[in-house]
Amino acid sequence: MRTLIKHALHSAHAIDPITVKGWVRTRRDSKDFSFIELNDGSSLSNLQCICDADIPGYNDIHKMTTGAAIAISGKLVESPGKGQTWELQASAIELIGDAPSDFPLQKKGHTPEFLRSISHLRPRANLYGAVFRMRSRLSRAIHRFFDERDFTYVHTPIITASDCEGAGEMFRVTTQSDDKNPEQDFFGKNTFLTVSGQLEGEAFATALSNIYTFGPTFRAENSHTSRHAAEFWMVEPEMAFCDLEGDMDLAEEFVKYLVEDALENNEGDLQIFNKFVDKGLIERLKFVAERPFQRVSYTEAVEILRASGQKFEYPVEWGVNLQSEHERYLTEEHFKCPTTVYNYPKAVKPFYMRTNDDGKTVTAMDLLVPGIGEIIGGAQREERLEVLQANMLEHGLSDEDYWWYLDLRKYGTCPHAGFGLGFERMLMFITGMKNIRDVIPFSRTPGHCEF
Amino acid sequence: MRTLIKHALHSAHAIDPITVKGWVRTRRDSKDFSFIELNDGSSLSNLQCICDADIPGYNDIHKMTTGAAIAISGKLVESPGKGQTWELQASAIELIGDAPSDFPLQKKGHTPEFLRSISHLRPRANLYGAVFRMRSRLSRAIHRFFDERDFTYVHTPIITASDCEGAGEMFRVTTQSDDKNPEQDFFGKNTFLTVSGQLEGEAFATALSNIYTFGPTFRAENSHTSRHAAEFWMVEPEMAFCDLEGDMDLAEEFVKYLVEDALENNEGDLQIFNKFVDKGLIERLKFVAERPFQRVSYTEAVEILRASGQKFEYPVEWGVNLQSEHERYLTEEHFKCPTTVYNYPKAVKPFYMRTNDDGKTVTAMDLLVPGIGEIIGGAQREERLEVLQANMLEHGLSDEDYWWYLDLRKYGTCPHAGFGLGFERMLMFITGMKNIRDVIPFSRTPGHCEF
Repeated sequence: MRTLIKHALHSAHAIDPITVKGWVRTRRDSKDFSFIELNDGSSLSNLQCICDADIPGYNDIHKMTTGAAIAISGKLVESPGKGQTWELQASAIELIGDAPSDFPLQKKGHTPEFLRSISHLRPRANLYGAVFRMRSRLSRAIHRFFDERDFTYVHTPIITASDCEGAGEMFRVTTQSDDKNPEQDFFGKNTFLTVSGQLEGEAFATALSNIYTFGPTFRAENSHTSRHAAEFWMVEPEMAFCDLEGDMDLAEEFVKYLVEDALENNEGDLQIFNKFVDKGLIERLKFVAERPFQRVSYTEAVEILRASGQKFEYPVEWGVNLQSEHERYLTEEHFKCPTTVYNYPKAVKPFYMRTNDDGKTVTAMDLLVPGIGEIIGGAQREERLEVLQANMLEHGLSDEDYWWYLDLRKYGTCPHAGFGLGFERMLMFITGMKNIRDVIPFSRTPGHCEF
Repeated sequence: MRTLIKHALHSAHAIDPITVKGWVRTRRDSKDFSFIELNDGSSLSNLQCICDADIPGYNDIHKMTTGAAIAISGKLVESPGKGQTWELQASAIELIGDAPSDFPLQKKGHTPEFLRSISHLRPRANLYGAVFRMRSRLSRAIHRFFDERDFTYVHTPIITASDCEGAGEMFRVTTQSDDKNPEQDFFGKNTFLTVSGQLEGEAFATALSNIYTFGPTFRAENSHTSRHAAEFWMVEPEMAFCDLEGDMDLAEEFVKYLVEDALENNEGDLQIFNKFVDKGLIERLKFVAERPFQRVSYTEAVEILRASGQKFEYPVEWGVNLQSEHERYLTEEHFKCPTTVYNYPKAVKPFYMRTNDDGKTVTAMDLLVPGIGEIIGGAQREERLEVLQANMLEHGLSDEDYWWYLDLRKYGTCPHAGFGLGFERMLMFITGMKNIRDVIPFSRTPGHCEF
């Protein structure tokens, strides 16, 4: 039986015999023995293994270079050395797969750009192993959060014939060589990759009460920023019998929960982010976990920005959408904490948001975090059939295309609300990683679809 | 505060005051009061509410028809009636959204085909609410299973330029109107929807040891069977330092775990499947949970089938792939339990499976279950660089296209193995539902991409 290095390192007692398998990180040879730092990806930390020169398999030691796969058997004993509790005293060592000297991860200090070009090997680097373990833990925390609150997980469709935003640039999905005859295509019409599961989520929320989606979404935008990818994962809860305030409550609770979970259950991975990526990371996460979030209406936010005396590239006035620079000023300079802005001008928001009594704002909300900007966008939905139809008319959307969405207002309609969390943006916030390409296993951006 | 009906029904004590919100399933009126069966989708069971004619809101009672959204406040008291522990004695009732008389779920006994045409309302029907709650629970059980075993969850890409099987029919993803100039397309080349995350999963397993994927996959097959959909979800674990036997062990443990979880944590939903869908369901699930699975080599399976005296549509001889009729004979007639068949002929399997020492079989395995057939397909992967390259040559695959996959064998290669579980097939097995379209929220099949 093989023991994961994570378990060996956290063992409550010595283990004899023990077998570990993994990849050599470093090896140092002395006359009569070798030190091997072994890692199997189960944790950031390596297991130090002492291999005497007379043990079986030692004659392959020269092939056990950085990157080689090996097995080591022996006993786990208390380590006299600093920085570790346990070490492995080897009684046998086996070369499983060597790593020629052109193995690209020999040395540290590679650029992120280079490491993206070897995305298939990059998780073997300490920093990226930590990123992807964190990605997994964050996913689990998301499911646990909603499970504890009685939400049903719904898989909304990826291939769709509708466009949630009534706007977004979408990828077309086809089995034809051109788009001349959509009626002959696989689905008998033009179909696309989803930009959001919200509309379908609403159908399930108005049946099962509390639901959430967690799956891939797509944007065919020709964006080359560090925050945009063509394929990314979104979390979208939707709640029946819920208003804007309940929506904001859940969003803030959600962000705090995920940050707290990362602080508590990270197998040491946060250390490497704090050390090599962002020295203020852990402090900032603790701050977010402990401090109450701010809430401010769009109208108040505009007043704050106009009174700030800041020179913004995009001037602020009531009625325009907030830009990244404005969002960052609010969270980083003014409030110095995550901030929820709500009740945006109707004209800058999608058709499905609920019109407020003032007739000019809608029940939209964006949760902004320092360093990232918008991490959550949500709204109470328009549940009144006639108002929704009027909004659709203004947006040039036809009743026929949305017949089923209108049905949700026709039969047993109720106030309901939800939001979307960009999963990668949250992961960037928690790891401090600056480029979305570095928190996605194999990222897809304009011109890039390798692996 | 609103209480979910699931919690009211499981309450340990009376609650006063209590407010519930949901949709009217049925209403019966007497002279001085009305009985309302209210459901909010949190459980199969309704909450019975007694509404006296003199309470506030009662003058809207005639609009509180099947499908209407309402709120009821009052106290939760012990029910004198049969079949329920608690009932709600209303002190106020509120109409939130009515349901006109053309609400399609007035009566029971609709066909599955009709209900598919109203997939947006179908989760409000008892049976489909139960299906989709079970889908959510099964997803959670999958994550829990792998979490308990130290697997890292990996999101492998949906848009891909490679074809895992070297065969499958794929959807093309594009922003162009035709496929004439792939170099001008969004990614600068032809791209497709993934048919499997396995190859990318292998890259992560050979870095993090134990990983799994759980996400949507796609097949552009013009299949019109009850078991095929164009978009479905797959679970794909992959383990470094693992051989075929370890792979089969995990697959069998996994199936048992999911069945046991469904039996133990189902909120009463299994009852409706057992009553209305498949009267032998619970008995069969218990059988699977309790009995050891069978294991048989492909060669032995062929001998059993040939000795059976059965007339098969597709004759059996060594070297052909097993058909559904053969798989069903093995599990339903011969072994009468789930059966794992391993070591298939090399010629009928993909290039990436490990060649056995006999040179003519590969370390493939299929886990077959009664009533469904193949539910899991897996293999130990070919980890030897030269053997893999020779296999690729036989399959007409080029080294250049798979350079990164070959790298996994070049640098620190190790035995590794994994499998894929068709999520919807497992859900069909657990619910007894006969058509894959009825266990997917909004199913996609040839000619069908509604909602």
